[in-house]
Parts: sequence; structure tokens; C-alpha cells
Amino acid sequence: MSEYVNVAVDAMGGDNAPGEIIKGTVDALNAYRQLRVMLVGREEIVKEELAKYTYPEKRVRIVNATEIIEMAEPPVNAIRKKKDSSIVKGLQLVKEGKCDAFVSAGSTGAILAGGQLIVGRIRGIERSPLAPLIPTSKGPALLIDCGANMDARPSQLVQFAQMGSIYMKNITGNPNPRVAIVNVGAEEEKGNALVKETFPLLKACDNINFIGSIEARDITDGYADVIVCDAFVGNVILKMFEGVASTLLHGIKDAIMSSTLQSRN
Amino acid sequence: MSEYVNVAVDAMGGDNAPGEIIKGTVDALNAYRQLRVMLVGREEIVKEELAKYTYPEKRVRIVNATEIIEMAEPPVNAIRKKKDSSIVKGLQLVKEGKCDAFVSAGSTGAILAGGQLIVGRIRGIERSPLAPLIPTSKGPALLIDCGANMDARPSQLVQFAQMGSIYMKNITGNPNPRVAIVNVGAEEEKGNALVKETFPLLKACDNINFIGSIEARDITDGYADVIVCDAFVGNVILKMFEGVASTLLHGIKDAIMSSTLQSRN
Repeated sequence: MSEYVNVAVDAMGGDNAPGEIIKGTVDALNAYRQLRVMLVGREEIVKEELAKYTYPEKRVRIVNATEIIEMAEPPVNAIRKKKDSSIVKGLQLVKEGKCDAFVSAGSTGAILAGGQLIVGRIRGIERSPLAPLIPTSKGPALLIDCGANMDARPSQLVQFAQMGSIYMKNITGNPNPRVAIVNVGAEEEKGNALVKETFPLLKACDNINFIGSIEARDITDGYADVIVCDAFVGNVILKMFEGVASTLLHGIKDAIMSSTLQSRN
Repeated sequence: MSEYVNVAVDAMGGDNAPGEIIKGTVDALNAYRQLRVMLVGREEIVKEELAKYTYPEKRVRIVNATEIIEMAEPPVNAIRKKKDSSIVKGLQLVKEGKCDAFVSAGSTGAILAGGQLIVGRIRGIERSPLAPLIPTSKGPALLIDCGANMDARPSQLVQFAQMGSIYMKNITGNPNPRVAIVNVGAEEEKGNALVKETFPLLKACDNINFIGSIEARDITDGYADVIVCDAFVGNVILKMFEGVASTLLHGIKDAIMSSTLQSRN
């Protein structure tokens, strides 16, 4: 096993690429001495950006990719057609074993489609979830799934719970992450058909620390480390989080501004 | 038609009953001169509470009900057994045409079950939704359904949209309330099976002002007046609202407290 972790980074993906991507890569290289990065993107542009920084040159390689997959492109189509894009080339580095992971702030749909078409799923895993870390008052929690499987089956939710648990063990070092399923009440008989069918399967799982149902009101208070739900519900959770926080903070800001204005008058 | 609106009020329902209920009833009687109230509950207790206030006595009647349905009781059972409860008697007043509406802060499940068993549904309506008004930065919006139908059918969501639209017209006076369905994106092809099937039905509805999909992040910003979803999703929306707001406001309070303490030291 290599003493290094090798990560392919999509230099061209995201709103502020490549500037912010290169900046973040340099920060990461300086913070983690076991990190090696392959920056995938237009060679000249990446070189030009990199030249702005002092960084450990031996741990960086540039992999030229001339095409860029845009946010609005139909994902599967884009992956099939743009063979020389940073996403396709980055994922190929993972498939070929040259990198351990691929990081991209580009089109979520293209990364998900490319992950399945190029890298492939782990044997036995039915679907790939999208699983962001969300902030809670007791540290980050993993919301799994939040966008990939709109009409999930119970067996898929069980796999999400297992994958999420392994992920959190490795990312946070917590040996026993608490896994909960999003539900409308704490009682086992509550829920829609999907949750009612999934609950006993999770309970019977001996490789996760299943603590039962979690109501949406308890998510931000950190009642669970791995929060399992179908993609539709996960999307609603993520976007309610964003919406309520933004509306409240704007409201508070407006209130402060108007009281400041009043006290000036 | 009577010049009065007759409302049955459950004097015994809710955490702070009967005190807060009677107080609110007196406030309402003073604010609305066309309001007549039948207070349903234990006569002695209700009389004792009422005696604390000055109020228009001619517009209040007490209807004795000796039993109380507790929050934890199985709803259908409670409705069937406790014939002399404030919820059963209040709903009977509506059924018999003696009151136009029933207001209760008691067991949601019992009120919903009682509504169906005693009052009955409007002819043609398949299911009764729970529909709270939620605050947004542009005034209240109706979230329908948020607890009654866990696995809703498209035809039921269409009826919720129609009932919600009529409700908002009458409550807010807005002649053309904007109706939207909760979805994971703005595009018509997005969503889970339920939303994809419901979307064209709503679009074809000529008695509502259907504006398409609403993402959860836009709910608190008041993008729609009637927000249609199944009960599971509605429950998640309502409880995320509560949870994010509470966590954020506690976080802000803690930050202010700790900065105050620091500046004192």
C-alpha cells in the first residue's frame, strides 16, 4: 500500500473554477503531507493558476483534459460524448487505480452518472446515493440519500445506512455512528409504506448502530450521525435547511438595519 | 342565513386548557362582533374561568361535556368510546348544523378521526388533509397535507390543491392564490413517481392558479400561497422549519450570551 492518498481533483468544475479549486488544492497539500493530487483540466490554465502559489511540487501532477461538462448538460449524454472532459478523465484515474478518489465541484448529475458508468458501483450495491455532510449543533451528520434515488426501495435504504455508517466511521473516527431513519414520529408503527417496510430491516442489521426514527425537527440538534431517507425527502430536508436559515438570517439582518436606522433618526 | 358565525370551541383541549382557551375565546368575541361561541367542556370549570372576564354574554353558550380525550389515546377508539367528550360533542354541533366550525387545540388524531366519523367528508373528497398555515416572509401560506395521508394518491393531491385554494381565498381574501407542488427542481420532468403523476393533473385543473413546482428552499420566502405535498413530506417540512429555526435562534442566543460574558471578564 502506498503511503500516500492519491486524489484526482476536477480543476474545471464549479462556479469559481479553476481559481478557487487550485487555491483549495494548495491549501490541502500544505495541510496534509500524505496527500498527492492529480489536477485534471486544461493544462495551460491550471499551470498559470498554480504558478501563483508556493506548494510541494512533487506531490502535484497536472492531467490535461480539454473539455468541460457544463452544469446544464444532460448528464449521461455529457459523460458519453465528452471523453476528454475533466470529469471523465478524473473518474478514469480512479477506475484505473491511479487515484483513490475524485473530487469535483462540477455538475452533480454528470459526476453521479460518470461514477456509475466509468467507475462502477461496489458489487451488490443497487444504487449510488448523494450524501452531503450537514451541520448540526453537535457536529456534522451525513444525510443519505439527498438526490439520486427518487423512488427508493427498502433494500436500497438499508444499503445507504450501511455505507453511511462506514463513511462516518472513517471520516469522523467515531467507532459507532448513530444511524436513524427520517420519520414522522418516534413510534415504530408510524411512517409511510417505505419507512414502515424499511424500519424492521434496519433493526435487524447487525453491522450498524440503528437508533430508530428521527423526526425532522431533531436533525439540526444532532440526534443522529447518519440520517437515512429517500432522495425526495432528503432534498426537501437539505433545501428547507437552506431556506429557513436564509429567511431567518435575512429577517434578523433587516430588523437590525431598521432599528439602527430608526435610532439614527 | 344567520348574520352570525357560530363556532364550537373545545374548552378542554390543549396544554393550557381551559385557561388559555377561555382567554382566547373572550379575545375573539371582543374582536369579532359577528362571532357566537359554544364552549364545550366541563360546565363548572368553564363557568369559573369565564367569570374572570368581561365579555358579551349573549354570544356565549356553554355546552357541558364531562369527558376529555387525552393526547396519548388511540384516536378512533377515543372517539368511539368517549361520547361525552368535548371533541365528540363539539363535532356533533357541527354535524347537526348548530355550529359552522369546530376549533380545538386537543389531540390532532382524535379531531381528524372525529371529523371523518362524526361530521363526514364533503361528497367526492377522498381524504381529509391536515393543513396548517405557516409563516413566510410574504405572509402565511397553507401547507396541505402535513400529517393525515402518508401514502397519498395523485387524485388526492389534486383535491388538496383545490380545497387549499378555496380555503386561502376565503381566509386571506386573495382572489387568486398561487398553488404549487413541492418538488426537487423547477422542471416538469423532475420528481418522484407521485409528483410526476400529479403535476399534469394540477396543470389541467381550471379552478386553481397552478404555478408549478416549488423547491423547499423557496417555501419560507413566500413563493406560493398553497403548498401541496403528501403528508410525509409535509411533516418533514413543518418539523424542519421548527428544528432549523430553534437551533439557529438558540445558537445566536448562546453566541450573544458568551460574548456578553467575555466582555464582562
